[in-house]
Amino acid sequence: MSTTKKLKLGLVGGGPGSFIGAIHLNGALMDGMFELAAGAFSSDPEKSRIRGEELMLPSNRVYGSYDEMFEKELELPESERIDVVCIVTPNNVHFDPTVKALKHGFHVALDKPLTLNYQEAKELYKAVKASDKFFLLTHTYSGYPMIKQAKQMIAEGQIGEVRKVYVEYPQGWLWKLLESEENKQAAWRTDPTKNGLAGCMGDIGTHAFHMAEYITGLKVSQLCADLYIKVEGRPIDDDGVVLMRFENGASGVLMASQTDTGAENNLKVRVYGEKGGLEWEQELNNSLLVRWPDQPDQIYRAGTGYLGSLANENTRTPAGHPEGYVEAFANLYRNFARCIYAQQKGETPKPEWEDFPGIEDGIRGMAFIDHVLKSNKSDQKWTPFIVEK
Amino acid sequence: MSTTKKLKLGLVGGGPGSFIGAIHLNGALMDGMFELAAGAFSSDPEKSRIRGEELMLPSNRVYGSYDEMFEKELELPESERIDVVCIVTPNNVHFDPTVKALKHGFHVALDKPLTLNYQEAKELYKAVKASDKFFLLTHTYSGYPMIKQAKQMIAEGQIGEVRKVYVEYPQGWLWKLLESEENKQAAWRTDPTKNGLAGCMGDIGTHAFHMAEYITGLKVSQLCADLYIKVEGRPIDDDGVVLMRFENGASGVLMASQTDTGAENNLKVRVYGEKGGLEWEQELNNSLLVRWPDQPDQIYRAGTGYLGSLANENTRTPAGHPEGYVEAFANLYRNFARCIYAQQKGETPKPEWEDFPGIEDGIRGMAFIDHVLKSNKSDQKWTPFIVEK
Amino acid sequence: MSTTKKLKLGLVGGGPGSFIGAIHLNGALMDGMFELAAGAFSSDPEKSRIRGEELMLPSNRVYGSYDEMFEKELELPESERIDVVCIVTPNNVHFDPTVKALKHGFHVALDKPLTLNYQEAKELYKAVKASDKFFLLTHTYSGYPMIKQAKQMIAEGQIGEVRKVYVEYPQGWLWKLLESEENKQAAWRTDPTKNGLAGCMGDIGTHAFHMAEYITGLKVSQLCADLYIKVEGRPIDDDGVVLMRFENGASGVLMASQTDTGAENNLKVRVYGEKGGLEWEQELNNSLLVRWPDQPDQIYRAGTGYLGSLANENTRTPAGHPEGYVEAFANLYRNFARCIYAQQKGETPKPEWEDFPGIEDGIRGMAFIDHVLKSNKSDQKWTPFIVEK
Amino acid sequence: MSTTKKLKLGLVGGGPGSFIGAIHLNGALMDGMFELAAGAFSSDPEKSRIRGEELMLPSNRVYGSYDEMFEKELELPESERIDVVCIVTPNNVHFDPTVKALKHGFHVALDKPLTLNYQEAKELYKAVKASDKFFLLTHTYSGYPMIKQAKQMIAEGQIGEVRKVYVEYPQGWLWKLLESEENKQAAWRTDPTKNGLAGCMGDIGTHAFHMAEYITGLKVSQLCADLYIKVEGRPIDDDGVVLMRFENGASGVLMASQTDTGAENNLKVRVYGEKGGLEWEQELNNSLLVRWPDQPDQIYRAGTGYLGSLANENTRTPAGHPEGYVEAFANLYRNFARCIYAQQKGETPKPEWEDFPGIEDGIRGMAFIDHVLKSNKSDQKWTPFIVEK
Repeated sequence: MSTTKKLKLGLVGGGPGSFIGAIHLNGALMDGMFELAAGAFSSDPEKSRIRGEELMLPSNRVYGSYDEMFEKELELPESERIDVVCIVTPNNVHFDPTVKALKHGFHVALDKPLTLNYQEAKELYKAVKASDKFFLLTHTYSGYPMIKQAKQMIAEGQIGEVRKVYVEYPQGWLWKLLESEENKQAAWRTDPTKNGLAGCMGDIGTHAFHMAEYITGLKVSQLCADLYIKVEGRPIDDDGVVLMRFENGASGVLMASQTDTGAENNLKVRVYGEKGGLEWEQELNNSLLVRWPDQPDQIYRAGTGYLGSLANENTRTPAGHPEGYVEAFANLYRNFARCIYAQQKGETPKPEWEDFPGIEDGIRGMAFIDHVLKSNKSDQKWTPFIVEK
Repeated sequence: MSTTKKLKLGLVGGGPGSFIGAIHLNGALMDGMFELAAGAFSSDPEKSRIRGEELMLPSNRVYGSYDEMFEKELELPESERIDVVCIVTPNNVHFDPTVKALKHGFHVALDKPLTLNYQEAKELYKAVKASDKFFLLTHTYSGYPMIKQAKQMIAEGQIGEVRKVYVEYPQGWLWKLLESEENKQAAWRTDPTKNGLAGCMGDIGTHAFHMAEYITGLKVSQLCADLYIKVEGRPIDDDGVVLMRFENGASGVLMASQTDTGAENNLKVRVYGEKGGLEWEQELNNSLLVRWPDQPDQIYRAGTGYLGSLANENTRTPAGHPEGYVEAFANLYRNFARCIYAQQKGETPKPEWEDFPGIEDGIRGMAFIDHVLKSNKSDQKWTPFIVEK
Repeated sequence: MSTTKKLKLGLVGGGPGSFIGAIHLNGALMDGMFELAAGAFSSDPEKSRIRGEELMLPSNRVYGSYDEMFEKELELPESERIDVVCIVTPNNVHFDPTVKALKHGFHVALDKPLTLNYQEAKELYKAVKASDKFFLLTHTYSGYPMIKQAKQMIAEGQIGEVRKVYVEYPQGWLWKLLESEENKQAAWRTDPTKNGLAGCMGDIGTHAFHMAEYITGLKVSQLCADLYIKVEGRPIDDDGVVLMRFENGASGVLMASQTDTGAENNLKVRVYGEKGGLEWEQELNNSLLVRWPDQPDQIYRAGTGYLGSLANENTRTPAGHPEGYVEAFANLYRNFARCIYAQQKGETPKPEWEDFPGIEDGIRGMAFIDHVLKSNKSDQKWTPFIVEK
Repeated sequence: MSTTKKLKLGLVGGGPGSFIGAIHLNGALMDGMFELAAGAFSSDPEKSRIRGEELMLPSNRVYGSYDEMFEKELELPESERIDVVCIVTPNNVHFDPTVKALKHGFHVALDKPLTLNYQEAKELYKAVKASDKFFLLTHTYSGYPMIKQAKQMIAEGQIGEVRKVYVEYPQGWLWKLLESEENKQAAWRTDPTKNGLAGCMGDIGTHAFHMAEYITGLKVSQLCADLYIKVEGRPIDDDGVVLMRFENGASGVLMASQTDTGAENNLKVRVYGEKGGLEWEQELNNSLLVRWPDQPDQIYRAGTGYLGSLANENTRTPAGHPEGYVEAFANLYRNFARCIYAQQKGETPKPEWEDFPGIEDGIRGMAFIDHVLKSNKSDQKWTPFIVEK
């Protein structure tokens, strides 16, 4: 027998009509480090059963609730029991299952944003800190190899001190009142009781904010937010812009929208330093444009031989064989798994493996939402950004 | 003899080391409607003489000052005398020659921004309004055919009511203190006495502002500005962002920088309406991306048969034969000339010909600079945008 | 218990240093329809053991040879035994394991090209035809959703009768004599005894040929080949071009190279018909450019709502969430699995699921190699293309 | 008086409905080195008169025939008389006016291809060689700055010995029988008596051939042609491909079409050498992609500071201010003019100025047409390419 074995995954959420649950699974399964072992796919037991069957789970590992899953799985022998809980429910069902999963001794992978609100986030922060289990928050876009490369180049000073960050996340899918047309995704994401009080800014603004801080290694210290409801009848923001100032004096502009009619999902980040610039866009994710003031721009490409260790640990194909969104997810899951394995074996993980988003990113994201909502209501231009933990 | 004749151009500025003077000439000459007839190329008569010789002007039409040029040209028979004065000097030498040229009965083409400051602008506004001469302000980017097409499509309601405008103008050429390295362009553009008090925002922010209003047909009603000096030792802004609100409730973000290291000149504008979106970038100027929420995006291309009248009147080659920056200039000059000819012949010009930037655009641009500077100093988020004329 | 269960995969090849074996696994595992159950990863039992351990297989399911694997697996109860054999060895080890696997009652997924030579291909053709097992040949690029869309649009007559096909496959990785530098991939792919007598044309020319026929639904009837050895010391072609004529009178150009220094892997196909054109390139695989003579070009995008059934059955993410090369593999494996499941359940698979490359594609690919080699030696311009089965 | 004066241009052709005549003028006028002084715009004197009036020529300089123009202009004082004849007529009216213009002592700028047929070309070759006048043949695409840069980089050995050239010129404008719809351009270009016996290959294949030889500095030694008439009812080819072998052993593929439905005018050239590769496409003409096997690809951009002398002498705007097709024409005309001026002044022109296409390019282009037609009819794969002069 091999000494390591696949990590067993128990899914919370991802029932019929879910988008992100299936993608989490694709990403987790791809590299053969996880296997789906159990699930509480829906709060409706029948829906959960149907989804479990689709996923070819034995029926005794399909549960009607996460509470039931935690309880029953703990009764199984350790070698059969799930190792990791993966939570892909709406934001109002993040806090409770995460806290309980950790308490029951499971590692947790949680979809972003961290929680429904900042208060929950601060409590969850403590729970994760108090646990010895691993916690992954799926800020997917930080899993792309060329983002890893950009982060490493900036950290190494290749573009000099950072002066400016543009990050934009234009989507158009909520261009009309889709939530009134039986669209499940639109319904919960525009419902403040399920999504939280920030709509667009909570859903994708937090991705953009994470990207800005992740890639530069800088922290925001002040912000100025301007949010809009572009589609009449919607209770929360579907568009906005946030000006940012970073601790080193750099400035930033963050734009996010779900009502840029016709736009798909092209998260784009541009960082300019004293010596050069970096530009990346998600829809062309295998390239990183590196700009110089006095020599030709360069196109760094995923899968090539000249990349740094951070990118190298996050690819699986050679140059010209495009990896994408699912692989970005897979990169997060693979690093998460590598760290769990290292812990199991008592080994020290490579620093590159530890580079996946977690609770520190999560609490900052929720603080971002909180400060953005505050700033949006304020007549004052600038709001200091202070994260309470 | 043909009844019409080429319009005779007298140049003010554009001496050795000038960039924009030569481009104005390329644009004006290309279509055979203008000929260079005289010039006061520099305040240094020797430099003026040298430039005149390079341009193959007879020496008696090369002047040591614009005052001299105006005086001497008026002494010539009307058929030999210049018709149009083209002013391509630094901003502090816009007001005086323009006012005098108009007073002496010449049409005027003036490089943007209108004047050194808002006060001058208001006076010049009156002077132009009082004159029966044509006045062209070279907001070049509005001369591109695909911008004309976008303007027409928006005006026709093809993308529905406009909700959002992103306009960005990232340059990187002032990434270091170039003005301390004998760079003539950098020197005057960072000198508040020659350039005015807004650096980046005056030079290229005004282009971006003009684009936002021109393409949408909407007027800004409030703004929130945040300017930066990114390079130490520079007296005026070299980077900034302006949030905008339009009279119809649409919102906008305007970014401009001269210190986005490695960036060239990619003015980009994106407009999203209730039904669709439009995206254009100057470095790929022959295409206009038209985005739809529920059908494939379309690429409108310059020189094709399906474009509207506004684009059609502003191209000269069939699709796939790229026109560029010089042709954008040429379009402004050609429309300006067509209007002058129509006036000479007592004919009504086509509305498409009258669509070139002039004094109304100029006064709004100077108001933009004024309000941006004010807003930048203010702790209040929003500053009302009111244009005094 | 659920009635369906995951398909159990037995891998042949894919030992240390293999590229494509790992990708097959990523693709097969991603959608949760397969699980790796056994493997004969290398002809060196120790290497096989090491790889099996990496892949977390129990040691009793790791074999020293495929013969051993077939024999031992058949001794296992049917519910534990592998269902599918996946063969990812060099071309000289395609024929034997495939024939044996089929004979032993396993479904087979085989990496392209079909066999070492045409003679083997003709025999294998008979073996597959005589079997009731499914056979997948991984012409990966036909798994991309936008290729599926293009195929469907052409079949529906949207661009009219096809007149012209350009297909090009420029790579640069063999730009120098890499095979003399301990590069395992380069070594076997340039060795005629392992790869076959056509180098570049066998490895990637067959992909390009498959693409040309797959996307258009047309068959080649004549060809004219011109092959080169660009790097001195290499025994087989590393570059070439093939002119093609199709049965309907359309013409085609196929270019393939492994010595286009600096090129990555941008397989590109363009098809022009009497009414419109289609253009696709693999490195930007989520877009399909649709060209019209008299209206704006369109960009069809993967994951949108307006695509046909063939594309829809081959995506997993919404528009703007890039899928890539691994997903193209996964699409082949998912369709293959869906057909196996349908057979198991006695159901009729959807036609879209049956659309994966198999033995007919394989025999044509080997005939292509054979005719290209013949034409290359001939002084005659055209060689008739006749496939013997 | 300034010692130099503008060169006076006499146009032959370019009457109403002409496309290329207007572009020649735009290009020639732009830089202020030429002025239009006379014209024989049409063989129909009334049409010539109308066009002359549009161009604001005095009526006594508008002629009913080129013979008349040559005769009358010679009667004018040398300082008023035209210096240069610019010939923009259909191919059957290239030979006669060129020979006569040279004989009368005028410099000549002639649109490509050189003549109606190879026989005329050989005679014209002698005439040009016997003259001391300058002769420009407007292979426009060689005027683009990034093509100049590519040529210089190859000549300097930056990509090593050239191995492979792909040149393609896909157009779609003749996708249907446009010549039956009163389209003047289509009519003469598909009429063998006006265009010559090679349709697509004569019109744009010659551009592609010129590009291949110009950029590499290599000469073709053998070719294999395959031509098609894609649109029924057309008497001459509208599509084709030519395989090429160069004197140094490099190989090439040339594709040209006027029936690639939906394609515009994207002449594209790719050159791969032993050390790197170069890729350029006309519709994105301000960039040159430089590819390396082991380091990031680079994007060389027009107007930057790091370009070589050949590119530098052929731009007028800084990076990010796109130049295009008209400027490519203007570059040819400017270099032509610079050489004429140098001759007038008894100076030696810069080598960069002498780099414009002329009679040697012209005779090779006509030989290309001749050999392509021969090869197309032959069953033999290869036809030796030998240029008789």
